[in-house]
Amino acid sequence: MNNEDFLEAYLSDRQKIVDEALRRYLPDEGGVPHDLHTAMHYSVFAGGKRIRPILCLAALEACGGDLAPAMPFACALELIHTYSLIHDDLPAMDNDDFRRGKPTSHKVFGEALAILAGDALLTEAFVLLSRMEKVRLAAEKRLAVIHEIATAAGVAGMVGGQALDIRAENHSPDFEGLECTHRLKTGALIAVAVKAGAILAGANDEKIQSLNVYGSHLGIAFQIADDILNVEGDSSLMGKKTGSDVASGKVTYPSLLGIENARAKLAEHIEAAAAAIEAFDSRALPLRVIARYIMDRKS
Amino acid sequence: MNNEDFLEAYLSDRQKIVDEALRRYLPDEGGVPHDLHTAMHYSVFAGGKRIRPILCLAALEACGGDLAPAMPFACALELIHTYSLIHDDLPAMDNDDFRRGKPTSHKVFGEALAILAGDALLTEAFVLLSRMEKVRLAAEKRLAVIHEIATAAGVAGMVGGQALDIRAENHSPDFEGLECTHRLKTGALIAVAVKAGAILAGANDEKIQSLNVYGSHLGIAFQIADDILNVEGDSSLMGKKTGSDVASGKVTYPSLLGIENARAKLAEHIEAAAAAIEAFDSRALPLRVIARYIMDRKS
Repeated sequence: MNNEDFLEAYLSDRQKIVDEALRRYLPDEGGVPHDLHTAMHYSVFAGGKRIRPILCLAALEACGGDLAPAMPFACALELIHTYSLIHDDLPAMDNDDFRRGKPTSHKVFGEALAILAGDALLTEAFVLLSRMEKVRLAAEKRLAVIHEIATAAGVAGMVGGQALDIRAENHSPDFEGLECTHRLKTGALIAVAVKAGAILAGANDEKIQSLNVYGSHLGIAFQIADDILNVEGDSSLMGKKTGSDVASGKVTYPSLLGIENARAKLAEHIEAAAAAIEAFDSRALPLRVIARYIMDRKS
Repeated sequence: MNNEDFLEAYLSDRQKIVDEALRRYLPDEGGVPHDLHTAMHYSVFAGGKRIRPILCLAALEACGGDLAPAMPFACALELIHTYSLIHDDLPAMDNDDFRRGKPTSHKVFGEALAILAGDALLTEAFVLLSRMEKVRLAAEKRLAVIHEIATAAGVAGMVGGQALDIRAENHSPDFEGLECTHRLKTGALIAVAVKAGAILAGANDEKIQSLNVYGSHLGIAFQIADDILNVEGDSSLMGKKTGSDVASGKVTYPSLLGIENARAKLAEHIEAAAAAIEAFDSRALPLRVIARYIMDRKS
């Protein structure tokens, strides 16, 4: 099996496992208030690729960890990612009508319920992270991972990055400013997904540190690939309009560096990510091929 | 010292302690991105009465617990409360321009930043709850309290209640529906503040249960008092417009029951709260006078 076939089978298998776990963990769609539960399910099951949970599980495997006790953590990362998309799409933010080929939450449920669905999913992530039953992990380790995830999701991470991104609409950032925005907005949650997997597997500090370097480069690479796709991507594959960054005059890697240099930057980060886990054995194969996939992704 | 003087001194002392802790715990106002940090500080220090943290600490004291290790929990409750006010005030929600006599977050910082400040404060609550340093509490106990707080703040609690409240604008609820809305929207976080204090103090199940009953009645009572104040309150004391519920035709305790019956209902819940902690010794005096204060509050 070549890398491409391996990756396709691996991602598809992992998406299935994560989807099943999400269905198990998310409060039942029939719950009260009904419309809020429906809105939560709508966005969680709108066709996400589950990259963050898959990275968490792949890092865990690379360190020889057991999947089952890590599933609530992997799923919590997806709930946090989903909430951030709902809020980012709001009229007051990026004002996007479509996401993954479907109308965005506020288009279907109205703005008020979209805001609340986001709030509820973020909160539910922490309900899930702190569940006591059936988790055979030391409480101290769980608290440490909760702390890492909350920090990466908050003002020092994802939310901070989103605030910088909004500000960039009026104050065009330079390259350093753009990289800082992306490191926080997209990079922090991806990096913590990988790090959480390592901590949950009980990896030693050296391995955790190596995987943190891998995750940080991967996070930035993911955003550069996103910027390139916004210029060159096929909107039918993406499920949303492309070309919007150029139209709005938004500062991106391609707009600052040119498309070729942006692509070179992406390759640099992917190489740095791969180099960081060179010493890992063959259990790190998924992490290696995922890095390649992010460089070549079409949607 | 009569009860009124005791309460005034007690609340003022506790507000000071909570404010000091919030200043210590909240990321520095000078942090990057600057506008987001400013927006977070603006709402957290906009003159809140700190009722939820004070209730948490009072329940802790009533069970003989030590204040210091509980401070992050008490403050996290205030961050969650503050985020909920920022989001509730948004144009898509209640569209309020003033809160505690000051312009609301979106009026000062714009809608996008107000949404993000709310998201950041909610996330920061969990950063605080999961901090490892200097907290001398068993990790299992901390996880259990995090779980209780997240559950009370989410779809099965506060956010669920807010969704019911928005829905009530088009589908006027009956008394049962109204009570359910209030139990979730306002009651859940107040009840969990009291319960968290009891758990953190290491109280036995019987005491935790009694305090949970106290907190549940107090939470509903708090909302009935709010509804009555909206009809009869002095807007200069409240720092916001009164009479808005009548003007908008909103279903409230006074509109469903009449003002006298609403007041009787409030007294019933206050009595039930007091009765639930009758067996507690004099260390429960603050909880007793706080219940009285909620019945008589003017703002």
